[in-house]
Amino acid sequence: MTLPTPLEIRPVHGIGDVTAGDDLAELITRAAPWLADGDVLVVTSKIVSKAEGRLVEVPADGPEREEARQRVLAGETARVVARRGNTTIVQTRHGFVMAAAGIDASNVDKTHLVLLPEDPDASARALRAGFAARGLDVAVIVSDTMGRAWRNGLTDVALGAAGISALLDHRGRFDPYGNELSLTQMAVVDELSAAGELVKGKTDRVPVAVVRGYSHDGGVGDGPGVSILIRDAESDMFGLGTSEARAAGLHSAATLADTPPAVPPLAAPVDPVAVRAARDAVAGLLTAVVRETPGGLRLTPSSDTPAALIRLGTEAHRLRAALAAEGVPTGLAIDDSGTTLTFGVPT
Amino acid sequence: MTLPTPLEIRPVHGIGDVTAGDDLAELITRAAPWLADGDVLVVTSKIVSKAEGRLVEVPADGPEREEARQRVLAGETARVVARRGNTTIVQTRHGFVMAAAGIDASNVDKTHLVLLPEDPDASARALRAGFAARGLDVAVIVSDTMGRAWRNGLTDVALGAAGISALLDHRGRFDPYGNELSLTQMAVVDELSAAGELVKGKTDRVPVAVVRGYSHDGGVGDGPGVSILIRDAESDMFGLGTSEARAAGLHSAATLADTPPAVPPLAAPVDPVAVRAARDAVAGLLTAVVRETPGGLRLTPSSDTPAALIRLGTEAHRLRAALAAEGVPTGLAIDDSGTTLTFGVPT
Repeated sequence: MTLPTPLEIRPVHGIGDVTAGDDLAELITRAAPWLADGDVLVVTSKIVSKAEGRLVEVPADGPEREEARQRVLAGETARVVARRGNTTIVQTRHGFVMAAAGIDASNVDKTHLVLLPEDPDASARALRAGFAARGLDVAVIVSDTMGRAWRNGLTDVALGAAGISALLDHRGRFDPYGNELSLTQMAVVDELSAAGELVKGKTDRVPVAVVRGYSHDGGVGDGPGVSILIRDAESDMFGLGTSEARAAGLHSAATLADTPPAVPPLAAPVDPVAVRAARDAVAGLLTAVVRETPGGLRLTPSSDTPAALIRLGTEAHRLRAALAAEGVPTGLAIDDSGTTLTFGVPT
Repeated sequence: MTLPTPLEIRPVHGIGDVTAGDDLAELITRAAPWLADGDVLVVTSKIVSKAEGRLVEVPADGPEREEARQRVLAGETARVVARRGNTTIVQTRHGFVMAAAGIDASNVDKTHLVLLPEDPDASARALRAGFAARGLDVAVIVSDTMGRAWRNGLTDVALGAAGISALLDHRGRFDPYGNELSLTQMAVVDELSAAGELVKGKTDRVPVAVVRGYSHDGGVGDGPGVSILIRDAESDMFGLGTSEARAAGLHSAATLADTPPAVPPLAAPVDPVAVRAARDAVAGLLTAVVRETPGGLRLTPSSDTPAALIRLGTEAHRLRAALAAEGVPTGLAIDDSGTTLTFGVPT
């Protein structure tokens, strides 16, 4: 039995602090003179961001810091995907779905936040060109740490790549039993990022790992990068958090137009402004008179025609669904002069 | 600059076909006599399932095969998470969220389907014990290929583990800048599984990879395994597919009880039985007379009291929301003797 050639994953020590304007290819080649053609470099996005000056100054502490962080987050957010407690999952301008848009306050002084690189694929291409200028033909992956749905714990995945195909496509190939491998596209750049993280750690300043001996499609040039891994919200079955989607469904029920409806936007955040938001959501659809009562709302018809009474009923249900979408369950009481909605306690 | 000690990932060749009752520890040690204490073995779940006889016989082709596959899938499914076209994402009895419950028809003859191991953590423990009986102190990870939300491409993750902690917890540690690492728990068994896949491939019968040189918490004994990575549906922000959650929201709007409601189950599948399902969903809540009309439904009140007219209106909206939850948008027309719902074309 011959010893199989192993894949090697080497940490790169001694890169030290990276600041805006630094030449990463220079810093890395100096710290890893043993780099060789065919190596795959997994570079933590943080040092790429630092070298590119993707830092914003924020107060070191206090409520001002959190306010500043929220402003920065809003600027990096294309859309909010899910929110629970202090956790906000957003889709970034790049299309990545990440907690807090990948904005990071670790491994940087307390007066700065680190943003993701502007264009991680471009960062990987530029870095790869920097190595090429030094006579090194390597692939470059820019990686970051992300959470995921359904499983606890974080893993490193790729934000950008150059000189390697993000996907290894087995489709059309056959297994030894003659079964076609119909649905097997492996996200190898994510697996390489995960492998690299195993030698990096979070605090010991090893921002680069080198994977040696991985045979990949070297003929791709820079290639399309990681952008091909991004699934657009329409084709993603989990483009919106469950509770957000459920609220959006209730919201759309509450705002059904008399003509066939289109899907409405995400419902507004619940409580303490929930009742106000619910009323605003259906205000344009109501002909009934709505009056605040202790612990509820009273609806009376605009006129006493049978049609006006029937419409009052539809409007009462619209308003109930709107309140439910805002996390405010209600009880309903109907009498001959109108309806009373009684607020319940959110379950 | 001294050469850092690399992490090594070695493929294990020559294991060959695995059948029910095979001793995997024996097959692996024979194929990899170079195994050493401290190695982390990443074992593809497929050969674990085969050794444990987790195969079901199915017709080789035809509609009977698909019917059989659906029966098997139902048996492995704890709940359906999302469905689109031919893709069904379910939570398995183990708690894993996977397409088709991880049931696999590849790398097996056409008359069988391979199920996930009954208890992958137990499988990993048993396999580790098998190596221990041969004087080898190794960690064992049982891995499989999974898709994920938001990103194209598949990666290998861990289904079971023994002799290694699934999570590496950085919480409470501080980075060089004095920032506490508050939310950093790395799912190292998933990263090790991904690293192992890089040397396995899908068709070349390399079902085991060995990671050498990874320093992990060896003092854990077997440890809790991968079960600690499973996030229960309540704490998962993506416990349900977006469209399923939106439909559930519409459904709950349609079925609001007069008393504060509880969250209803997932709405029934839409079309062609959509209208029937929508009517059934609210049947118990309707006092109005509902009549089929060309392209719609006509609702008339059970009596002519003002309260009955108002209630008719609430019921008309319940029914509209129920139809919307089933993918059937409606238009609404109100007159003095009732309401007419006109079916629209799903957008």
